[in-house]
Amino acid sequence: MPGALLTDLYELTMAASYLRRAMTAPATFSLTVRDLPPSRGFLVAAGIEDALDFLASLEFEDDDLAYLVDEVGFDRADAEAFRDLRFTGDVWAVPEGRTLVAGEPLLEVTAPLPEAQMVETFLLNQVTHQTALASKAARCVLAAKGRDVVDFAFRRTHGLDAALTVARTSAMVGFAATSNVAAARRYGLAATGTMAHAYIEAFPTERQAFTAYARDFPDRTTFLVDTFDTLEGVRTVIGVIRELGLSERLAIRLDSGDLATLAAASRRLLDDAGLSQVRIVASGALDEFEIERLLDAGAPIDAFGVGTRMGVSADAPSLDTVYKLVEFEGRPVLKLSTGKVSTPGAKQVFRGPGMADLLGLREEAPPHGTRLLLEQVMAGGRRTGPRATLADGSRRFRADLAQLPAEARRITDPRPWSVPRSPSLDALARETEDRVSHHR
Amino acid sequence: MPGALLTDLYELTMAASYLRRAMTAPATFSLTVRDLPPSRGFLVAAGIEDALDFLASLEFEDDDLAYLVDEVGFDRADAEAFRDLRFTGDVWAVPEGRTLVAGEPLLEVTAPLPEAQMVETFLLNQVTHQTALASKAARCVLAAKGRDVVDFAFRRTHGLDAALTVARTSAMVGFAATSNVAAARRYGLAATGTMAHAYIEAFPTERQAFTAYARDFPDRTTFLVDTFDTLEGVRTVIGVIRELGLSERLAIRLDSGDLATLAAASRRLLDDAGLSQVRIVASGALDEFEIERLLDAGAPIDAFGVGTRMGVSADAPSLDTVYKLVEFEGRPVLKLSTGKVSTPGAKQVFRGPGMADLLGLREEAPPHGTRLLLEQVMAGGRRTGPRATLADGSRRFRADLAQLPAEARRITDPRPWSVPRSPSLDALARETEDRVSHHR
Repeated sequence: MPGALLTDLYELTMAASYLRRAMTAPATFSLTVRDLPPSRGFLVAAGIEDALDFLASLEFEDDDLAYLVDEVGFDRADAEAFRDLRFTGDVWAVPEGRTLVAGEPLLEVTAPLPEAQMVETFLLNQVTHQTALASKAARCVLAAKGRDVVDFAFRRTHGLDAALTVARTSAMVGFAATSNVAAARRYGLAATGTMAHAYIEAFPTERQAFTAYARDFPDRTTFLVDTFDTLEGVRTVIGVIRELGLSERLAIRLDSGDLATLAAASRRLLDDAGLSQVRIVASGALDEFEIERLLDAGAPIDAFGVGTRMGVSADAPSLDTVYKLVEFEGRPVLKLSTGKVSTPGAKQVFRGPGMADLLGLREEAPPHGTRLLLEQVMAGGRRTGPRATLADGSRRFRADLAQLPAEARRITDPRPWSVPRSPSLDALARETEDRVSHHR
Repeated sequence: MPGALLTDLYELTMAASYLRRAMTAPATFSLTVRDLPPSRGFLVAAGIEDALDFLASLEFEDDDLAYLVDEVGFDRADAEAFRDLRFTGDVWAVPEGRTLVAGEPLLEVTAPLPEAQMVETFLLNQVTHQTALASKAARCVLAAKGRDVVDFAFRRTHGLDAALTVARTSAMVGFAATSNVAAARRYGLAATGTMAHAYIEAFPTERQAFTAYARDFPDRTTFLVDTFDTLEGVRTVIGVIRELGLSERLAIRLDSGDLATLAAASRRLLDDAGLSQVRIVASGALDEFEIERLLDAGAPIDAFGVGTRMGVSADAPSLDTVYKLVEFEGRPVLKLSTGKVSTPGAKQVFRGPGMADLLGLREEAPPHGTRLLLEQVMAGGRRTGPRATLADGSRRFRADLAQLPAEARRITDPRPWSVPRSPSLDALARETEDRVSHHR
């Protein structure tokens, strides 16, 4: 569903107004998260690649223009100006998989003002929700401390493309597999799944259901044991495993009740039966807080199926992103709206080891020993390199994870690192504020 | 993006297992919300039409089957069985726009077991998120007490199809317009928009920006007044209106600060200038709680632009939906999992005036003076009538709203109505529980 109408009306109204008076000088917009949700110590950048695809293909179709004139009330001259419009600008972005915090630009666009303005809605939409979902999934991975985490979210995400995004971004931050078959196919992920309660109920007895499933899929059987009575279910599983002589890739899944207690009791039953190779998978309203609680309680759980709470980022379903004009015609700009003051100028983040970040100006020299967080990914409306892959994002995330401060990694009460401003940026912000306050 | 792979892997695994042993007798699954979020007194049904489109077109493509065999590990015989599979079942559903509460089925499927099982993920995904978003939007409409409410959510929804869903479902429950141009075009909605702070900042002064915009769009100007100083902005607007002799469809928009105080002060400035026809639009982190608070404080706001919090249903971004097997081969079934006991049997809701609902069995006679909440919308895999329109949903919602109990309508601490079970359903549940407890 690409298309130039994937935008808020005001972007088009403003763009038309700019075009009417030839206000096409370069403008820089900065896409930033104003504040992190209280339960986030860091973000994982995502959504950039889809944003770039949109920019590279931006174009009004004839029927888009007819709609804008006939139904919305634009002038024919506006429509003709829109017809010629393409995205011809430059883009800097934090590559997918990199970690960052509030105040650090995720993406900056420098382009003729109408183009840079028009794309606001789409860029915000993709970067905001994908970054929110990637960041939530990353916390689940951290909480699981090396145990497998699997995406079970498809059934309650906000639609189909959200389900694909959840599968892709959770894979990027280290999820082992997804239940979403379409996503597994599209992104080359491991597809995984067990059985539902309905399967058990469709057979006359639980034992018959377990036996049928194990006969059909003897090399990948995860028995769902909580349909009637969990520990009875585990005993039945032990009987079926012995009867059929199963040995490979076996697991039980716990999906209700006191998971810590049931996991411990199930582990004992399995171990006493000589089945220490049978893994225990837990699911049911899990998120990073619950995973941490279970592991702190010593629950012998080998893998976590994480669904809705991760897939909608339940505790922080959105991020406080903004896309702010910071420079126009070479002149730094800002707004002074209460509680929403913006920082002027095209920016860069200079990153030293251990996430020692400095927010500076795009044009200033990087301090010794730092690298640039924002990379130029588009020049003159074209990508500067190939589309980054999921593997690229995973590699970056693993590298950043190794550098993440302990307080930012914490599940409970995390603290993001602080990002001082460079003296040059500070001076520019003060000058601009003075100028704007006196001159509007 | 239709397609049979839009499902969790376990649905396909179970379906294959059923097909191998010819377990194709009719099964009934019931899609229900287990519990309402604490801040919801009712739900608005949505997502049914997209669910039916999926069912009507369900079919595996050759490349889907190749993927399942080559990459996922299904047998060739499973793939051949999938190739012939279509959805041939019957569906009952609560039509879009109707209000309901937890425990009342939103949708029931009666179909050969493999078909009914396989579609679980898609049906849950569409019905869950669309119902969640429609229900949140309905509360915003209630809070606004007749004032206009407008959808500004596109930039932070969970992707593009979520943005379309938000625009469509919010229109269904009474939103006056949307900022989302693609959605306005697709669904025939009023597109609306004002200007962003960037527009003001792109001009040398706020006054020049207001003047330019008003010259370009004299018949639909909403001035954003909070870029530098809100009340100064209002005074500037008054000057521009006088200078240009504007009179039609004028408004100011407040987007930051203490909206109640600023609205009152702005109203006074406008009224003192003889501009009582200029409307006041408020936006910025609004939801039904904030709208109620502003109106309780007497804020003279004429329209509310509601964005992210509505568009992600921030306080309840998901619903606790389940899709449970309730009958197979004519035999009622249930599960006894801790905290998740299900109710057996194909169901119906008998609704009397004022949402006097009774949960009964599909086959029992409706009590006198009630009508059926669930309507048969598909028979033998085909729709029983045309696709319901947005206008159909709106009409139903308005009719239901007039019947909604006061406690369910409340913004703060709402209470859903209770839904007793019919004696027949009660008896069936008790019998089935006894049978299952003794016979597994």
